[in-house]
Amino acid sequence: MSNTSNTSNTNQGPVTVLGLGMMGTALATAFVKNGNATTVWNRSAGKADALVEQGAVFTAGIRQAIEASPVIVACVSTYEVLNELIGGAAAELKGKTIVNLTSGTPEDARALAGWAEQHGVRYLDGTIMAVPQMIGLPQAMVFYAGAQEVFAEQEELLKPLAGSNVYLGADTGAAMIYDLGLLSLLWSSLAGYFHAVALVQSAGVSAEAFTPFALTWIEHVITPAIPRSAQEIDSGNFATEVSSLGVNKAAIEHLVATSRQLGVDSDFSAAIQALIERRVAEGHAGHSLASLVEAFKQG
Amino acid sequence: MSNTSNTSNTNQGPVTVLGLGMMGTALATAFVKNGNATTVWNRSAGKADALVEQGAVFTAGIRQAIEASPVIVACVSTYEVLNELIGGAAAELKGKTIVNLTSGTPEDARALAGWAEQHGVRYLDGTIMAVPQMIGLPQAMVFYAGAQEVFAEQEELLKPLAGSNVYLGADTGAAMIYDLGLLSLLWSSLAGYFHAVALVQSAGVSAEAFTPFALTWIEHVITPAIPRSAQEIDSGNFATEVSSLGVNKAAIEHLVATSRQLGVDSDFSAAIQALIERRVAEGHAGHSLASLVEAFKQG
Ligand SMILES: NC(=O)c1ccc[n+]([C@@H]2O[C@H](COP(=O)([O-])OP(=O)(O)OC[C@H]3O[C@@H](n4cnc5c(N)ncnc54)[C@H](OP(=O)(O)O)[C@@H]3O)[C@@H](O)[C@H]2O)c1
Ligand SMILES: NC(=O)c1ccc[n+]([C@@H]2O[C@H](COP(=O)([O-])OP(=O)(O)OC[C@H]3O[C@@H](n4cnc5c(N)ncnc54)[C@H](OP(=O)(O)O)[C@@H]3O)[C@@H](O)[C@H]2O)c1
Repeated sequence: MSNTSNTSNTNQGPVTVLGLGMMGTALATAFVKNGNATTVWNRSAGKADALVEQGAVFTAGIRQAIEASPVIVACVSTYEVLNELIGGAAAELKGKTIVNLTSGTPEDARALAGWAEQHGVRYLDGTIMAVPQMIGLPQAMVFYAGAQEVFAEQEELLKPLAGSNVYLGADTGAAMIYDLGLLSLLWSSLAGYFHAVALVQSAGVSAEAFTPFALTWIEHVITPAIPRSAQEIDSGNFATEVSSLGVNKAAIEHLVATSRQLGVDSDFSAAIQALIERRVAEGHAGHSLASLVEAFKQG
Repeated sequence: MSNTSNTSNTNQGPVTVLGLGMMGTALATAFVKNGNATTVWNRSAGKADALVEQGAVFTAGIRQAIEASPVIVACVSTYEVLNELIGGAAAELKGKTIVNLTSGTPEDARALAGWAEQHGVRYLDGTIMAVPQMIGLPQAMVFYAGAQEVFAEQEELLKPLAGSNVYLGADTGAAMIYDLGLLSLLWSSLAGYFHAVALVQSAGVSAEAFTPFALTWIEHVITPAIPRSAQEIDSGNFATEVSSLGVNKAAIEHLVATSRQLGVDSDFSAAIQALIERRVAEGHAGHSLASLVEAFKQG
C-alpha cells in the first residue's frame, strides 16, 4: 500500500468501524495504518484478531463500539443487517455521525437517512467502488451522498480509505444509483467474459490462453466505444459509421444459436438479443448500439 | 492511418473484395492504400464510388470480380448471403482462394469450407476483431482458421488489414468461436454500460458526466478481474478474498429491484442474477464470481 497523502493527513481522530467482513477489515486496516484510534466491532469476534494485533481496539458490544468514537463507519452485508444492528442504539448514536459504506438501494439509503434525522444522528451515505485490496490506494474511489455539510466535516477523516472521494450531492440515494450502475457494468462485463470462456473451452482452449485477446479487445474496442456512445446518447444522434443494430442483430442470433448447440447458457445473450430486436422492430436497424439505452428506458 | 509495415510489404498482388458495407469498404481501402490492384464488387454499386476514385476497379458482375484476382476477400452481412452470392460461381472460383471475413457461426464456417473443398477452392476463414475505423492500424486484430498452408500462402497479402494476424488452427470453426466469445464480451459490457446510463439518467445525470467513472471502473476493477478470473477458472480454485457470490447475490437483488422501480429494463440483470442464484443454491456462496463459468457450462 502506498498512499503518500496519508502521511500528511492531519485528521487522525478516533473512528469506529462496524463490520469486519472482507471490506470492513480493509477499511479498519487503512485507519489503523493512518494512525487513527480505531475501535472495531463484528458479530464474529475472531475476525478482529489481526486488527487488534495492529493496534485496533475490539469491543464485544456494539454500543460500546459506538460510544468510543464520534464517527462510526459501517460496512456490513446489507442495510437490513445494519438497520437491525443500530436500531436499538439510537441513544448512543445521537449527535454522532454514521458514514455508511454498506451497499443497497437508493431507497435503503434514503430510509436510513430519514431514521438518522429523526434520531438526531448525522448521516452520510457512501459506496466503495473498489475491491478490498484497493482500499487506501490512489485508484480506489468512494462515492458519497447526503448533506454537503456532513461530507465537508468528514472528508479529511475519510481520506485514508481511497484516492478519490467523490461527493455526488444532497440526494442521499445518489451514491447507490451510481453504485448499482457500475455494478451492472461489472457483472455484465464479467458474465460476458465467462460466457466467452465457456465457448472457447468447448474448443479445447484454456481461459488463460484466451485472456490476452479479451484484454486487447477491452482496451482497443470496448473502452473507446464508451465515450463515443455517451456522446451519441446525450445528443440523441445514433447514426453510425461503426456498426449498426441491424448487423448486430444477425450476429447475436449466431451467438445464441451456437451457445445452445454447444450446451452453453444462452439466456444471458438472449436477454441482450431481446433488447436489440426490440429496437430493430421499432425501426432503428441503422442506429448504433448506443441506441439500446432507449430500450433499457422502456423498462 | 499509420502502418509502417505496409511500406515494406512486398506482396502487392491483385485482390478482389466482395461486399462494400462499412467493413468491406475499410478492407478495400486498406488494399488500395497498400498498392494492391484491387477489384471491388457490391450489390449496391454506389458504395464503390469513393474507392474507384482512389484507384480500385469496380465490376458490375460478381463473376468478373472473381475472375480479376487469385484471392477473393469476402465481407458481407452473413454466410447465407455469401453462400448465395458465390453458389453459382464455383467454376470461376476453382483454383482460387477465398478469405472469408464475414461473421457467422462455427457451423457456417465449416459448411462453407466443405463446399469450397468439394469445388476445388482454397478456403481460409477469418474474423475481424476491430471496428472499420481500426482497419490497417497496429491495434487491429484478425483471427484466421483453416488449413495452415492456405494461411501461410496469404499471410503477407493480408498484412495491410491489421497489425495482428492470429492463426488459430486447422479447425475452420475456431475463428467464429473466438469471434462469438469476444462479441459476447462486447455486447454484455456495452449493455451493462447502457443499463448504468439509464439508471443515472433517472437521477438527472448525463451519460457524459457518468462516463469518466465508468472508464476508471473498467480500468481499475473490471480489467484486473479478468486475468485473476482466468487463473481461478483454469485451476478450479474459486476461493476468494475479493468478493463472494453470496455478497453479489444480495447486491444484484438490489439492482433488479431498483431497475424495476425506476422503470428501467431488469430482464438483462435478472439473467445474470439467475446464474448467480443457481451457483449459490448449489453451495458456492463463498466462491468468487469466476465460478459462474460453471453455470454457463450447464447450458
Ligand atoms: N468485497 C467487495 O469487493 C466489495 C466492494 C464494494 C462494496 N462492497 C460492499 O461492502 C459490504 C460488505 O461486503 P464484504 O465483501 O465485506 O462482505 P462479507 O465479507 O461477506 O462481510 C459481511 C459482513 O456483514 C456482517 N453481517 C452479515 N450478516 C450479519 C448479521 N445478521 N448480523 C451482524 N453482522 C452481519 C458479517 O459479519 P460476520 O463476520 O459475523 O459474518 C460481516 O462483517 C457489502 O454491502 C458489499 O456489497 C464489497
Ligand atoms: N462493422 C463492424 O464493426 C464489424 C466488425 C467486425 C466484423 N464485422 C462483420 O463484417 C460483416 C460486414 O459488416 P458491415 O459492418 O460491413 O455491414 P454493413 O455495412 O451492413 O454491410 C453489409 C454488406 O453485406 C451486403 N449484403 C447484405 N445482404 C446482401 C444480399 N442479399 N446480397 C448481396 N449483398 C448483400 C451489403 O450490400 P449492400 O451495400 O448492397 O446492402 C453490404 O455490402 C458482418 O458479418 C459483420 O458482422 C463488422
